[in-house]
Amino acid sequence: MINQEKKLVELKNKLSEINDLEMSGALLNWDQSTYMPSGGAKARGRQMATLAKIAQEKLIDPAIGKLLDDLRPYEESLPYDSDDASLIRIARLDYERAIRVPPEFMLEYNLHSSDSYQTWAQARPENDFKKVQPYLEKTLELSRKYSDFFPGYEHIADPLIDVSDYGMKALTIRKLFKELRDQLVPIVNTITSQPPTDSSFLHKIYPEAQQLRFAEKVVRTLGYDFNRGRIDKTHHPFMTKFSLGDVRITTRVKEDYFGETIFSNIHESGHAMYEQGINLDYEATPLGTGTSSGVHESQSRTWENLVGRSREFWIYFFPFLKEEFPEQLRGITLEQFYRGINKVERSLIRTDADEVTYNLHVMLRFDLELALLEGKLSVRDLPEAWNDRYASDLNIKPTNDRDGVMQDVHWYGGFIGGAFQGYTLGNILSAQFYAAALKAHPQIPAEIKTGKFTQLHEWLNKNLYQYGRKFTADEIVKKATGSPLTINPYIQYLKTKYGELYDL
Amino acid sequence: MINQEKKLVELKNKLSEINDLEMSGALLNWDQSTYMPSGGAKARGRQMATLAKIAQEKLIDPAIGKLLDDLRPYEESLPYDSDDASLIRIARLDYERAIRVPPEFMLEYNLHSSDSYQTWAQARPENDFKKVQPYLEKTLELSRKYSDFFPGYEHIADPLIDVSDYGMKALTIRKLFKELRDQLVPIVNTITSQPPTDSSFLHKIYPEAQQLRFAEKVVRTLGYDFNRGRIDKTHHPFMTKFSLGDVRITTRVKEDYFGETIFSNIHESGHAMYEQGINLDYEATPLGTGTSSGVHESQSRTWENLVGRSREFWIYFFPFLKEEFPEQLRGITLEQFYRGINKVERSLIRTDADEVTYNLHVMLRFDLELALLEGKLSVRDLPEAWNDRYASDLNIKPTNDRDGVMQDVHWYGGFIGGAFQGYTLGNILSAQFYAAALKAHPQIPAEIKTGKFTQLHEWLNKNLYQYGRKFTADEIVKKATGSPLTINPYIQYLKTKYGELYDL
Repeated sequence: MINQEKKLVELKNKLSEINDLEMSGALLNWDQSTYMPSGGAKARGRQMATLAKIAQEKLIDPAIGKLLDDLRPYEESLPYDSDDASLIRIARLDYERAIRVPPEFMLEYNLHSSDSYQTWAQARPENDFKKVQPYLEKTLELSRKYSDFFPGYEHIADPLIDVSDYGMKALTIRKLFKELRDQLVPIVNTITSQPPTDSSFLHKIYPEAQQLRFAEKVVRTLGYDFNRGRIDKTHHPFMTKFSLGDVRITTRVKEDYFGETIFSNIHESGHAMYEQGINLDYEATPLGTGTSSGVHESQSRTWENLVGRSREFWIYFFPFLKEEFPEQLRGITLEQFYRGINKVERSLIRTDADEVTYNLHVMLRFDLELALLEGKLSVRDLPEAWNDRYASDLNIKPTNDRDGVMQDVHWYGGFIGGAFQGYTLGNILSAQFYAAALKAHPQIPAEIKTGKFTQLHEWLNKNLYQYGRKFTADEIVKKATGSPLTINPYIQYLKTKYGELYDL
Repeated sequence: MINQEKKLVELKNKLSEINDLEMSGALLNWDQSTYMPSGGAKARGRQMATLAKIAQEKLIDPAIGKLLDDLRPYEESLPYDSDDASLIRIARLDYERAIRVPPEFMLEYNLHSSDSYQTWAQARPENDFKKVQPYLEKTLELSRKYSDFFPGYEHIADPLIDVSDYGMKALTIRKLFKELRDQLVPIVNTITSQPPTDSSFLHKIYPEAQQLRFAEKVVRTLGYDFNRGRIDKTHHPFMTKFSLGDVRITTRVKEDYFGETIFSNIHESGHAMYEQGINLDYEATPLGTGTSSGVHESQSRTWENLVGRSREFWIYFFPFLKEEFPEQLRGITLEQFYRGINKVERSLIRTDADEVTYNLHVMLRFDLELALLEGKLSVRDLPEAWNDRYASDLNIKPTNDRDGVMQDVHWYGGFIGGAFQGYTLGNILSAQFYAAALKAHPQIPAEIKTGKFTQLHEWLNKNLYQYGRKFTADEIVKKATGSPLTINPYIQYLKTKYGELYDL
């Protein structure tokens, strides 16, 4: 066994080196989005590509395969959920996926993605879908080719979905999403036929420095650890990580809309608190990150929506908010504020959508991805298909592609397939995890009213965050909630919350 | 020849990859000094070590040696100063130096340096030389060992000096420094026997934001390009580079001393303008950086002292300064200000020293380095030797080791040998280059009076900056000034300037 332990150390050293390269790449990317002067852009792209290439070369090193083979008896001698067995298991998963894809393909794909992204960034403001169409066609071809490196799939999207939501199948998700859509569309119709909620007070001028100060105070109170993180400004908010001791978020401000900074800050800090909660022993190993995009999104949405848009939350924070913005909120009651931040309306832009309509945006993208991959929809016909689905699902039709099919970066800088399902899976899971937390600690809402988030945060740390990638999404959902993934808690949550806000 | 050009491309690709790793490491270091939360420290050290290790492995790859051998006929077919021949020549120099040193030695050295640095950082505030002594002894041993990988040296310090000031020899520098010291000591004695200059107005309260704004305006006017750079705050100011398009400087503020931010900003922007001036074709090649620590320092000191502490400079900037700080400078004339910022006094701390005494600090360190390496001085006796030299050279005796032998990081985080000579070589060279620029463009001082720095900046770009490492220090000094390195212009400069300020 001593020999096995030596081999495990050897494996960990190799994996740590790969992790160091990936985390360095993440810092280069963070700097590019925050502080890099424009003159640095060209070299920065090359530098990030170099780090990614070396990390990839090191991951597919046959020496890793050999170590994984040699370690199989050791792994099998250990309990499934031991740290060592899990490390070997997850490392093998990554290795076996990586070696299926030829390096030349990755090179071609990376170069193409970069070109495609540049073209999109230019074409979107010009509303010029024709310009991106050939890139998207090539992306579709490359996405299909990627899947074909994993023969034996049930649906051609499955290998692409596996990358971010390991173990989820296209056909399962399609069925799940249909169920959800069938429930959501009538709710949206009922709500939007009622008089619109007044949220005009959210659109007064809220000065940047004050918004940033308030949002920072909020996420600090929620439990985002500033000794292991920080907030900087970027064009699009995101969470990024350079180690378990350095998990950063970024934010942006719209002075004429109060909701932007606060909710994106809470959202990103939800992602960050997940990463900050991971067992520190997993640092620089494949276990040291969130387990899937769906589970990750469940945490950003838990904190943003289930907590951050709850009445209890604002019972505590609204007085502080009024202190910070007395003019802007003069005469606005807690109840008006609560209704304002939970206003439901049909809209064109996914990232601006409310809780109820948001999933309709996501699910139509998912369906279009599948149709493209199945060959049932051509890229040329994509804008029309997009607009039709907005008309049928959301009863609103885009008048241009900029705010239509070109609004999200995902297809223009990555694969088609696997890009969107995580958002809705996350919403579904957020309610399922939260219901389990409430069952264990029914006093959580009462605590939140007093600005305490400890019980919730501790439950999440204990039942979810600490494990990192040790368990798959499927495994952790069952372990933490006692049930496989189900949409019932989510539907229940929406019906209760919005049934009280609107006439359902 | 087509085959040779293919090999050159191959070599460039390999060198670019190494450069990408080094520049990524520099960004990790910059982030550590500027924005990294404390929790990131542990992983960051490991990540920087990983990048350095991989870069080193790639540099000593025998495939590079093979390419360099294969490219010799091509190199010899080209003019010495052609870009391709220079690239091959400098790459060979780096390669041949790197392969002499066994990777295990570098590993041991890097681990030791890191421990030694940590110990110093703790021991210095505690004024505890005993704590660092064993580390310093080991550093001395490793420094000697490093030199012994380069047998045939004239002096054991030569291989260490070669790393930063390629081609300079310990015995040459020792002679040069003795000459300089013999001239400086009487000047310092004469000046410091006269009544001290009043500079108390520099020690009023100058608020941080205003100091930063003013210093930024100044370096922008000098020609530091903010599209290819930026300024952030750090504990110790430095210049760092991530590509020729991204050359950053850092600064710090002492609100009770006006001289700190402004002169360190000008100093670092001098380093940065050198890097920003390098031929962009040299990006990601061994040619794309300054040629030696002495030449680099000559540029920081040119801008800081020959320009930034000149009367002409303040003829232009003093009115703006008075506008920014009317209270602090009420009643202070340009002449008083000029004398204040050029006040000469005996002091203990190198980095706080004025132009005249500064080199005495540097040269005594250089002599002590040589004595340690030669075995004529033991580490145990170093503090006493240090204090004795301060007494004899500067007529002031340190009362503790914190502000004595432990004040500089260099010996505690790097080799003993090669650490200090660049500072004084830089001062000497700054005057030699500047004299050549003035000879070519006698109107430079008149231009500076009007806030124009174009002629000077262009002369430096054309005669020095653009070449990067294409020419060695020796070569570029002769090429740009028509003479080998000489202390005469520097002595002339000091005597003229300080002869006017004091009774010499």
